[in-house]
Amino acid sequence: MGTGLARAAAAELDVHDPLARWVDGFVVERPAEIYFDGNSLGRLSHRTRARVEAAVAGWGTDLVQGWREWIDLPTDVGDRIGRAVLGASSGQTVVCDCTTVNLFKLAGAAVAAGRPRSTIVTDGANFPTDRYVLAGLADTHRLDLRLIERVDPEAVTDALDDSVALVALSHVDYRSGAIADVAGITAAVHRCGALVLWDLSHSAGALEIELDAWDVDLAVGCSYKYLNGGPGAPAWLYVNRRHHEVLAPPIWGWFAQADQFAMGPEFRPDTGIRRWLTGTPPILGIAAVDESVAMIEEAGIRAIRAKGSALTTYAAELAAAWLEPLGFDCPAVATRGSHLALVHPDAYRLSCALIAEAGVVADFREPDILRIGLSPLMTRFVDVWDGFDRIRALTERCAWERYDVTRGRVT
Amino acid sequence: MGTGLARAAAAELDVHDPLARWVDGFVVERPAEIYFDGNSLGRLSHRTRARVEAAVAGWGTDLVQGWREWIDLPTDVGDRIGRAVLGASSGQTVVCDCTTVNLFKLAGAAVAAGRPRSTIVTDGANFPTDRYVLAGLADTHRLDLRLIERVDPEAVTDALDDSVALVALSHVDYRSGAIADVAGITAAVHRCGALVLWDLSHSAGALEIELDAWDVDLAVGCSYKYLNGGPGAPAWLYVNRRHHEVLAPPIWGWFAQADQFAMGPEFRPDTGIRRWLTGTPPILGIAAVDESVAMIEEAGIRAIRAKGSALTTYAAELAAAWLEPLGFDCPAVATRGSHLALVHPDAYRLSCALIAEAGVVADFREPDILRIGLSPLMTRFVDVWDGFDRIRALTERCAWERYDVTRGRVT
Repeated sequence: MGTGLARAAAAELDVHDPLARWVDGFVVERPAEIYFDGNSLGRLSHRTRARVEAAVAGWGTDLVQGWREWIDLPTDVGDRIGRAVLGASSGQTVVCDCTTVNLFKLAGAAVAAGRPRSTIVTDGANFPTDRYVLAGLADTHRLDLRLIERVDPEAVTDALDDSVALVALSHVDYRSGAIADVAGITAAVHRCGALVLWDLSHSAGALEIELDAWDVDLAVGCSYKYLNGGPGAPAWLYVNRRHHEVLAPPIWGWFAQADQFAMGPEFRPDTGIRRWLTGTPPILGIAAVDESVAMIEEAGIRAIRAKGSALTTYAAELAAAWLEPLGFDCPAVATRGSHLALVHPDAYRLSCALIAEAGVVADFREPDILRIGLSPLMTRFVDVWDGFDRIRALTERCAWERYDVTRGRVT
Repeated sequence: MGTGLARAAAAELDVHDPLARWVDGFVVERPAEIYFDGNSLGRLSHRTRARVEAAVAGWGTDLVQGWREWIDLPTDVGDRIGRAVLGASSGQTVVCDCTTVNLFKLAGAAVAAGRPRSTIVTDGANFPTDRYVLAGLADTHRLDLRLIERVDPEAVTDALDDSVALVALSHVDYRSGAIADVAGITAAVHRCGALVLWDLSHSAGALEIELDAWDVDLAVGCSYKYLNGGPGAPAWLYVNRRHHEVLAPPIWGWFAQADQFAMGPEFRPDTGIRRWLTGTPPILGIAAVDESVAMIEEAGIRAIRAKGSALTTYAAELAAAWLEPLGFDCPAVATRGSHLALVHPDAYRLSCALIAEAGVVADFREPDILRIGLSPLMTRFVDVWDGFDRIRALTERCAWERYDVTRGRVT
């Protein structure tokens, strides 16, 4: 093995990492464990823990009068997400509901506004909840759901015609990590007169995003991956200002009402981003997101993306040198988010054995992917080295082949 | 004033209150404040604070592997709510989303299944989000929304015909506190071949409810009122078992998928209550609800209801003796939930002055209602006495008339 692949080289990269200090901002209860899953559930930070405790204390002290401040949290934290990670000017982003419900609201509004156009285009390999929500809308409203096989401007253009109301895609592929050309695809969709909805769950907090500059219509994303908001943290949505008074939410809830506490007889939604709220927003969850996103804002998304690129590039080098000879395939993608896919025919059993026998936590994704997430703020280069070294060792010993997934042990 | 209205009599009622010890289970940061708003936002309990801290710690320690346990929380806590407060056998209740979204899902499914029936019936004075959600569904699906003026079996029966697909009502009126005859109305709706959806936000945790015995089809409710789950706590929904494989959720999300992590191409929803889930459930919020409902389960809903009745009866006596001579009206209702309405022409200004000048927190509700919520587990009889004494004193001095709502002080 060359010097470039020695552990000392990884340690040297950490020494020169301008974001290195942020790693200590996160709670690490199991220091022997290598966590390659910050792209699935980000770590708890010390600040976020303190902030949740403060929010709980605020409930206990202020009781119902806390709503004087809480009422603005969904839009205030939405603006912070817009500013820190989305490239969105204020008043276009709000924190509410879960990603699935936000997809439903925005896609539902887009297809209603697009009539008589009757087709939704998505990626056949899009994340399941995106495909299911769109299929449900197609079923309810008797629309066609058209699946594409590649997410690039040419493939999207080929799928477009004047029956298309909405194109809904993911910025980063949840399996391969491939990055879509948001600006190029958005322009192609607009040329056909349709709207575009981007799911940024796998990119927000990891990549540089410019929703306003890219002229995106609609976007959604979760807050528990790179935004580190905690398990099931409330999601967010973005609606470009030009659509605010045009698109109508399909779920009419009291938190969208312009004069909410007049409790009037008719639904008269707010003219701004608040019209996309539904019911009472989850204050403890939004407080956690606020603090976690504040850390990203302070670290700076440009620096985070630079580190993420360096981490995945380094990981791909280790994979090529150590793992491809052992039967792994690490498919090259032109550009990649902050995770990468290691393809292995026995990936599921390997992923279980890695957790139980080697203390390496990584996701399995159907059918044969071991997904390595390298969340920039919480991952060191030596973590990558140590984790790949353990994967190599387990595979060399063929230890995973003797791992009984059902019994949870080597037999 | 008679002996029965002396403070000592209230103290005597507390001495004999079998639930008295539960009051100490709640955080009281402002002991001088009288809190008559536990029906809007229940107090934080010491146990719930500890439970949220444990859930946050669990996130920090278990990270993504926490999902092995978290995955069952929505149904486990749903079952606890079903058992403790709804009279629902297991497998019919789940914690998810907010009340507004749950109303949308269940009402949407009911009207889709009810075709060609094309009418929704609700109460013209129902809580705003209920009316708005139903109006939105009527708008989207070109249905008629028929409003009734009284929530009793006769008025409902008069509004029924064979065009009615769904009747959606609230168990307890959010303003007057009047209790609807759920069993009688449900039977009337069934005779017409329609489904019924009950909103139990203002009764769950305060009244004895028997959803299974009453043969209710569908129900929803929030968890931040009498269930004490915290601001914007996740809501719950109930679907009677007989509808499980008949009704189809309008929002198709990945947490409803039968074999969720196979991430297959088609939406194949779970055959049980999980099919009403949408996206990733909010774990910190559900943990808070779990602990808060566990307290209700231990105290027992029968005892809670008995105390709630005693508190509201006592409050109505004080209102009749002290406040009606001062220009308040306390409308008699045949049966009443755990809150009561004091009607006063200047109720809004009075409610502001009460908070600022007298340390009494109660809700204003349009147009002229001062709403007094007496959440049984956290309210003592002397709290009622002290609060009403302060209302009386402020009113006698006409102090509220000099209160400037905009400036927040007596001018």
